[in-house]
Amino acid sequence: MSRDNETIITPWEVKGKLEYEKIIQQFGTSPLTEGLIKRFKKLAGGNLHVMLRRKLFFTHRDFDLVINHYEKGGEVVLYTGRGPSGPIHLGHYVPWIFTKYLQDVFKAKLYFQITDDEKFLYHREYRLKDVQKFTNDNILDIIAAGFDPHKTKIIIDIRDINVLYKIAVKVAKHVTFSTVKAVFGFQHSTNIGLIFFPAVQAAPCFLEEEITGENVLTLIPCAIDQDPYFRVARDIAAKLGYNKPSTLYSKFFPGLLAGGKMSSSEPESAIYMTDTSETIKRKIWNAFTGGQPTVEEQRLKGGNPDICPIFHYLYFLFEEDDHKIRQQEMDCRSGNLLCGEHKLYLIKKLVNFMEKHRKRREKARDLVDKFLL
Amino acid sequence: MSRDNETIITPWEVKGKLEYEKIIQQFGTSPLTEGLIKRFKKLAGGNLHVMLRRKLFFTHRDFDLVINHYEKGGEVVLYTGRGPSGPIHLGHYVPWIFTKYLQDVFKAKLYFQITDDEKFLYHREYRLKDVQKFTNDNILDIIAAGFDPHKTKIIIDIRDINVLYKIAVKVAKHVTFSTVKAVFGFQHSTNIGLIFFPAVQAAPCFLEEEITGENVLTLIPCAIDQDPYFRVARDIAAKLGYNKPSTLYSKFFPGLLAGGKMSSSEPESAIYMTDTSETIKRKIWNAFTGGQPTVEEQRLKGGNPDICPIFHYLYFLFEEDDHKIRQQEMDCRSGNLLCGEHKLYLIKKLVNFMEKHRKRREKARDLVDKFLL
Repeated sequence: MSRDNETIITPWEVKGKLEYEKIIQQFGTSPLTEGLIKRFKKLAGGNLHVMLRRKLFFTHRDFDLVINHYEKGGEVVLYTGRGPSGPIHLGHYVPWIFTKYLQDVFKAKLYFQITDDEKFLYHREYRLKDVQKFTNDNILDIIAAGFDPHKTKIIIDIRDINVLYKIAVKVAKHVTFSTVKAVFGFQHSTNIGLIFFPAVQAAPCFLEEEITGENVLTLIPCAIDQDPYFRVARDIAAKLGYNKPSTLYSKFFPGLLAGGKMSSSEPESAIYMTDTSETIKRKIWNAFTGGQPTVEEQRLKGGNPDICPIFHYLYFLFEEDDHKIRQQEMDCRSGNLLCGEHKLYLIKKLVNFMEKHRKRREKARDLVDKFLL
Repeated sequence: MSRDNETIITPWEVKGKLEYEKIIQQFGTSPLTEGLIKRFKKLAGGNLHVMLRRKLFFTHRDFDLVINHYEKGGEVVLYTGRGPSGPIHLGHYVPWIFTKYLQDVFKAKLYFQITDDEKFLYHREYRLKDVQKFTNDNILDIIAAGFDPHKTKIIIDIRDINVLYKIAVKVAKHVTFSTVKAVFGFQHSTNIGLIFFPAVQAAPCFLEEEITGENVLTLIPCAIDQDPYFRVARDIAAKLGYNKPSTLYSKFFPGLLAGGKMSSSEPESAIYMTDTSETIKRKIWNAFTGGQPTVEEQRLKGGNPDICPIFHYLYFLFEEDDHKIRQQEMDCRSGNLLCGEHKLYLIKKLVNFMEKHRKRREKARDLVDKFLL
């Protein structure tokens, strides 16, 4: 948990202005240096993902150790997750694209945890069947991200708890209420399921070592708000005789409205993976930009790509061409590029991307069994 | 938890003078009335177990509802458990004899929970394999108690958590840290596994309803120290749409040393189910009694059966004949019966009982698979 002026980042809440340099300092993570990125690029055969090049993934814990380990022929296992509290939007999906890329680079096994227990325990109004419905829905988007079915296992906590519980009690034995109070802000009024849950989320960090007994390193790509869980897991890894998990954290994918991240609580801020092309066009068309109120002013003063979701979507994902994105940035700032033009450009790429996703998503229905534990 | 002067009764600690009338008041349970016992006797076809006749089982919650339900043709399910923290002694075993009797009377399914998670989480020095060793050992004694293999399922928490976790998270959602702090005395320094555990122990209360969807009543025969768990379970049953579990509580089986219950922390106070006949003879021979220091004084003043474990063992278990036990009590008080004679009498019955148990225990090795989930 990090509170600075009005910035709040917890696994349940992200609020306020996000200054990622400050976040690195507050969380005590390491910045992704150019040196490290260069080493990883070599390891990736020169194919550096746009999200690393442009620092959507921006900070880490011990990612350098993962690179060392892999360079020496060691095995790397990936672990990421999803809390099934609603449909998937692009903000959720973006780190999965990157995780799929990491799976290819490291030829890695991936554990994908669905924390249905946590979402049930957190949302007072949710019944188990609500969470189950989201789980079944979300799995289709996960599979559609293109993970290797031979190397990917989706763990649904309540369904697959038998795989996790033994590790979770070992973790839990070393984590007191004081600790989860300090780290997660739990109160006396917090329910005992949520209090235990950090042990369940820690379990997959150690699953591959537990199963194989091999010296594998687990790398966790996810958004920075999940760091508290893995800080706890890292703190006790040695006590349990496991390797510390390494992490690679992303910024939040910006929402379509002014400020803030893409959020399920504001549907117009988010592009859902099942949105139709028409809905996508409308949402982008209505989106906030860094532009001026009128064409005349835009031509005169130029726009501000730094605060513009249209620019950010292209920058972090949809415009991989470094030359083109630099040109767009300059044209925006100079007033050469109007917001309407830029939106149309993004819409074309986004609609195309989402059409492909929806097709893969339909095919995913037949693949679910292959991905489940 | 109940603290009165120096009397402490929690699931982890029983200390001080045990005044069972006071305990009933403090715990807020109902005494087993003669009227209720009479109704149950009828239901049991006249065969009233010595532990009910002599009130080793002495208090309950809603046992009358169980009788009503069964009389109307309803199904009763039994649930009891064992925390595998060492070998089984007679104090552990006695309630199982009674549970087996209840199984026969109610023709009931029995869930027998092995709380290996809790024992691992509670004892700092225990490794999982220690608890596993005790589990494997204890199961032999459980099976040797003679439960119906077609109607009895042993649930080993860590191994079988998949059956319990879904119910446990439903329970946990309604139990806060404040509650477990108040009920179990948990502190900020308590680990998050122990904090969650009451939800795991509550789960079998609702298991049969969860599985079958039928209107079954669950009856839990166990020692009174387990009441806090079931108080919590009863409190939230309605919120989850389950029937409240009913309970039937025993006193503690007395130890062989002066005062206190049979305790694993004092091996000479306890008769272990694997003790040899020689060991049993020695332990009984060395046992504390209610007798006088010399034969002369005993003849003159008589003994005190009220504080005598030898008498209690016979009273609660080994001397079912009401006439004979009354005679022994009178002869003790009058000085007619010497402690040595009484000890020899008990030794004969006890050695015989344990020999039979050891034979059943050996046969139990082949039955384990039948009893596991």
